[in-house]
Amino acid sequence: MSLLSSLRRCFDEELQKQADHIRQQLAMGETKPYTEVVDASSADAHRTGMPALTFMRQVLAACLYPDLLQDDTLPVDVRQRAERMLGQCDGRSVGAYSESCGYEHVQVSVAKFISRRDGGLASGPVFITSGFQRGLMVILKLLVWGSGQSQPAVLIPEPHPHTLPRLLNILGLAALPYRLQERRGWVLEKEELQRAIQASRGRCNPRAIYISNPGNPTGHVQDRNTIQEVIQFAAEENLLLLVDEVYQDCVFGPDCEFLSCKRALFEMGPLYSGCVKMVSFNSLSNGTMGECGLRVGYMEVVNFDDAVLPFVETLLTGDISPPVIGQVGLDVMAEPPCPGEPSYSRYIQELLSCERTLRENVDKGRSFLNLLPGFNCPPVVGGVYLYTHLTLPQVVGVYAGPLYCGRLLEEEGVCVGLSECMCDDHSATGSCWYIRISILMPPHKLDDLLRRLGSFHLRFLHQLP
Amino acid sequence: MSLLSSLRRCFDEELQKQADHIRQQLAMGETKPYTEVVDASSADAHRTGMPALTFMRQVLAACLYPDLLQDDTLPVDVRQRAERMLGQCDGRSVGAYSESCGYEHVQVSVAKFISRRDGGLASGPVFITSGFQRGLMVILKLLVWGSGQSQPAVLIPEPHPHTLPRLLNILGLAALPYRLQERRGWVLEKEELQRAIQASRGRCNPRAIYISNPGNPTGHVQDRNTIQEVIQFAAEENLLLLVDEVYQDCVFGPDCEFLSCKRALFEMGPLYSGCVKMVSFNSLSNGTMGECGLRVGYMEVVNFDDAVLPFVETLLTGDISPPVIGQVGLDVMAEPPCPGEPSYSRYIQELLSCERTLRENVDKGRSFLNLLPGFNCPPVVGGVYLYTHLTLPQVVGVYAGPLYCGRLLEEEGVCVGLSECMCDDHSATGSCWYIRISILMPPHKLDDLLRRLGSFHLRFLHQLP
Repeated sequence: MSLLSSLRRCFDEELQKQADHIRQQLAMGETKPYTEVVDASSADAHRTGMPALTFMRQVLAACLYPDLLQDDTLPVDVRQRAERMLGQCDGRSVGAYSESCGYEHVQVSVAKFISRRDGGLASGPVFITSGFQRGLMVILKLLVWGSGQSQPAVLIPEPHPHTLPRLLNILGLAALPYRLQERRGWVLEKEELQRAIQASRGRCNPRAIYISNPGNPTGHVQDRNTIQEVIQFAAEENLLLLVDEVYQDCVFGPDCEFLSCKRALFEMGPLYSGCVKMVSFNSLSNGTMGECGLRVGYMEVVNFDDAVLPFVETLLTGDISPPVIGQVGLDVMAEPPCPGEPSYSRYIQELLSCERTLRENVDKGRSFLNLLPGFNCPPVVGGVYLYTHLTLPQVVGVYAGPLYCGRLLEEEGVCVGLSECMCDDHSATGSCWYIRISILMPPHKLDDLLRRLGSFHLRFLHQLP
Repeated sequence: MSLLSSLRRCFDEELQKQADHIRQQLAMGETKPYTEVVDASSADAHRTGMPALTFMRQVLAACLYPDLLQDDTLPVDVRQRAERMLGQCDGRSVGAYSESCGYEHVQVSVAKFISRRDGGLASGPVFITSGFQRGLMVILKLLVWGSGQSQPAVLIPEPHPHTLPRLLNILGLAALPYRLQERRGWVLEKEELQRAIQASRGRCNPRAIYISNPGNPTGHVQDRNTIQEVIQFAAEENLLLLVDEVYQDCVFGPDCEFLSCKRALFEMGPLYSGCVKMVSFNSLSNGTMGECGLRVGYMEVVNFDDAVLPFVETLLTGDISPPVIGQVGLDVMAEPPCPGEPSYSRYIQELLSCERTLRENVDKGRSFLNLLPGFNCPPVVGGVYLYTHLTLPQVVGVYAGPLYCGRLLEEEGVCVGLSECMCDDHSATGSCWYIRISILMPPHKLDDLLRRLGSFHLRFLHQLP
């Protein structure tokens, strides 16, 4: 696993290095068949041209430069919101520190957002963080502390978010992969969890299980039954449940609905809701907000011992304070404009437009990919990626994937994510890979990307001996 | 040391908790002799009412809400700068991630800033960080890795920045205090460094020395001779030099000038400049910018082995990316408006006004404090604090300091920093403490704070048995 993970990391890293190199060449005036590199390997909405939400940006600009509150450059509800946010900032400035766990008023907004989402269930304690990954690091750090002799370990899905192994590695945590069942829509099966934990006996000390819902990068959405099984498993094995729910705003499958793990837990009754420890993560870098550069997220913790919470706080003091402009953004996400307010209709239209784009991108992208020989893209019902098989002829060799993606990048300026496929059933027909393509981009950009990818793909196959 | 440190931490934490409690009482409408708590215990310029720089905030607002580039709401050089910065952001948006070490164009701006400051000396590699403390944590983490059996340790000044011991503690590093010589203007003496390191033999493994210049919280500015001695000491003992130069913009003593440790090192010739490993830290949260809430800083590394730099990068990936709005701010700090540009004159006036405020606050604050019986505030030539002795009559008891500060906060709404004094010569006359008061506030606010402090002080002494 660790070798494979590091290989995978290398694929992504090498492709990123190559993309940087090409960008530099373009900047120096070198002529290529394209004028810019499209990076679809990670979910960075604004990098790939998705627009920011106007209300969000207006509020943030007004908080940074309060002179904008003096005239009617900005809508009245923007000014009122900015006034309110500044009134709650120390010194009426977003330039002051907040508490290490974020401003209390932002925590309260987020707690209300969680409670609305979960049908009125009260939120657990909310910690504002400098982004999802920083929050996850703080929680993982708790697992490392006092871990004794054997290496603490985390069960992680296979496939998993591409940044996860590096994070575990930095903290000295072992990764215990459990396979998602691709043929059954990437479902998570309890037997596989049991297999994974059995295989770890005597090697390391499993402390937590990581689940991603909607799945990053797989694009599946877990149903109640699956979530309940995971919760039961966590209870049986006394594991902390780490719930990556960053793409909860991106669910577009016909019969799909996002169900939070917290809600599923509490609807299982006190036997579970009173004991299973859980952390749910969310982020302003998610699908529809896409504000990755603001670096802010939150985590809701459930069933933590009161004595542990101060340790979380202490670890968060390492950041001193999450970025305050990001916190204002999180507040906007948690409390968007209401019906009747001047910005409401535009805000809703922009959200709907984003959702429509994701849905259309998925449909178009899947249809297109599945027409190309060797591609096999299973249904995507949520998340932000097209996650597709690519089977390349054996003749290309054992490094067919990196070769393919490297040439795609060089010849067409298209950067996609790559990982090796663990499945067995393709080995006879060819070398099997996974390709990850972000759907967070305007439709014309995806059209362009698909056109370049398609033309490259046919050329690649045609040129084989 | 560790007990004392944790006690000190408790003082600050307890006072902060009390301050929060009082703020809540005020918010609930409770009547007090004051309407707000003034927190002068930390250097948070905007919290205490220092204004943001207009050019800075205009550029940031325009980057967040580029519609502001369409008309003449903002000066033309603001719009040009924002255009340029957006042009260098991926997807023309501050909502996209940057590289983990920050955007290259920001690194270049900072490197030029360092080079201009150091008389043309080339800058070492620059890493943009999510604030000074995050950068410091990443470097300290390198010391923890592979430290073997004995606990890695860092020599730290006494007095030191009040957030430092907690940071070392989180990372499992031992603190080895060396005393600054108060009677000689808080000078750092090589003999004391030698004493401190001798005392550590067999107990822990000294890996680095931390110096703060201008001194936090002591307000001294180190001269070339002292810096050279520290460099020699670091070379002899093979220690990494951690140089907190966050307040390099705050030097106001009559014959004082800021000399960077890097410049001093390189002017000592190749015997030292080729081998002493050093990291210099700076931050946008510094004295004149005061943008703490944006969470960004940088570190310049010198003489690091090329093989080590990727580890720094890897550790910084834990943050994914420093906040991009902060990076734009750092670029403004590194490249302020030039003569002839529309915003130049206002920018310079605002900077000068800030510097004048700090200078006047120091003069007025020291004069006032030194008139109060028991206070003895030595000269302050730089930094952002009045750091004063307070000797209280023995009759107040062993917890005189916390008692005094707690009552000052409760009765007057003034929160100051507190630590225990290590000096011996006051023990006969009373219980001796250090009080830390930020000078980063508008003059009328400091006037008000001093009035409240003075009136409380006399009342406190009068009420003693």
